[in-house]
Amino acid sequence: MAILQAAHDLHTQALSITRRDRERMGGHKGRVIWFTGLSGSGKSTMANALELELHARGLRTYLLDGDNVRQGLNKDLGFTDADRVENIRRIAEVARLMMDAGLIVMTAFISPFRREREMARALIGSENFLEVYISTPLEVCEQRDVKGLYKKARSGLLPNMTGLHSPYEAPEHPDIELDCSNAPAAQSLEKILHVVLPHQPSQSAP
Amino acid sequence: MAILQAAHDLHTQALSITRRDRERMGGHKGRVIWFTGLSGSGKSTMANALELELHARGLRTYLLDGDNVRQGLNKDLGFTDADRVENIRRIAEVARLMMDAGLIVMTAFISPFRREREMARALIGSENFLEVYISTPLEVCEQRDVKGLYKKARSGLLPNMTGLHSPYEAPEHPDIELDCSNAPAAQSLEKILHVVLPHQPSQSAP
Repeated sequence: MAILQAAHDLHTQALSITRRDRERMGGHKGRVIWFTGLSGSGKSTMANALELELHARGLRTYLLDGDNVRQGLNKDLGFTDADRVENIRRIAEVARLMMDAGLIVMTAFISPFRREREMARALIGSENFLEVYISTPLEVCEQRDVKGLYKKARSGLLPNMTGLHSPYEAPEHPDIELDCSNAPAAQSLEKILHVVLPHQPSQSAP
Repeated sequence: MAILQAAHDLHTQALSITRRDRERMGGHKGRVIWFTGLSGSGKSTMANALELELHARGLRTYLLDGDNVRQGLNKDLGFTDADRVENIRRIAEVARLMMDAGLIVMTAFISPFRREREMARALIGSENFLEVYISTPLEVCEQRDVKGLYKKARSGLLPNMTGLHSPYEAPEHPDIELDCSNAPAAQSLEKILHVVLPHQPSQSAP
């Protein structure tokens, strides 16, 4: 028995730590939940609320958003179409690395182009990727104008504002669609949790 | 009592999940262990061995190296001096994000320039940053030539080989220095663990 056990240990001993090893330690799979929608639609608010819920359930999470990416990794990029594409490419690559580390990664960026979101999905793998479209209409986003960006853009100070001068290509088949202008946040959150949680075994399951 | 407790809960309830929250869940601090040294010096081998040891102790780890970064996030970069600088900048930014996620991040890149390593340290924060200099001499690295790069470089096929055509600026005050040409790997590993582990509370301590 001891010899069999030793042979088994030898056989299963990792030469390097893999995604599977890290997921086993965490008790759940790594994945990417990709929020997309106009500025002011409620992406960051919903992603943040989701992270709070997942963390409270003992899941390992990280939220990539403008605050921690645009000021750091992508601070060399502007808002031209080419820079937006490179912005999304790098975010997708970082999200993939973090998923490989066993984390549930939420990304909250406008990510206006269908092609770039498809690139992100392909890079991360369809089976790991959930697209959440926050479909709050432009009028509502502009009326809220939490960051004052629409006002700035209307007055000509922001030349590439998505929805005004630069297109937003809505997802055709998002995994989840939420219009945050009507539904209360708690109800929208339930809708996301309903999709996200069944895929995650409870923390106690190895 | 119940009211006091409720007030306390309200007060301590997070509005968003912070690095401290993630570290508390993991039972240890996030940090960055930065390996530097010539090609073939043993950086990846040592970083990989370290990750195995830390993972076995229940710590949450990730290893950034050429395999997962040069093919993905940094695949648009070559080996000119400017590209090497941008390569290290992005790695430092990603390591910082992963540390913020509560992970112990190991990076295994030549990172030949002192200034870029100092930039990485400043960005990540001195208190979070350990520089491990793998000081295996060039002659030994070239004799091993695991990837055949030195041979390629000597024959003129690799124009920017560190140590031959491009400088390697050795750290002046590394936190750890290991010459992997003499010491057995196990002994070198002990030396790193001796420095890394005292900083980490055991997993059971919240």
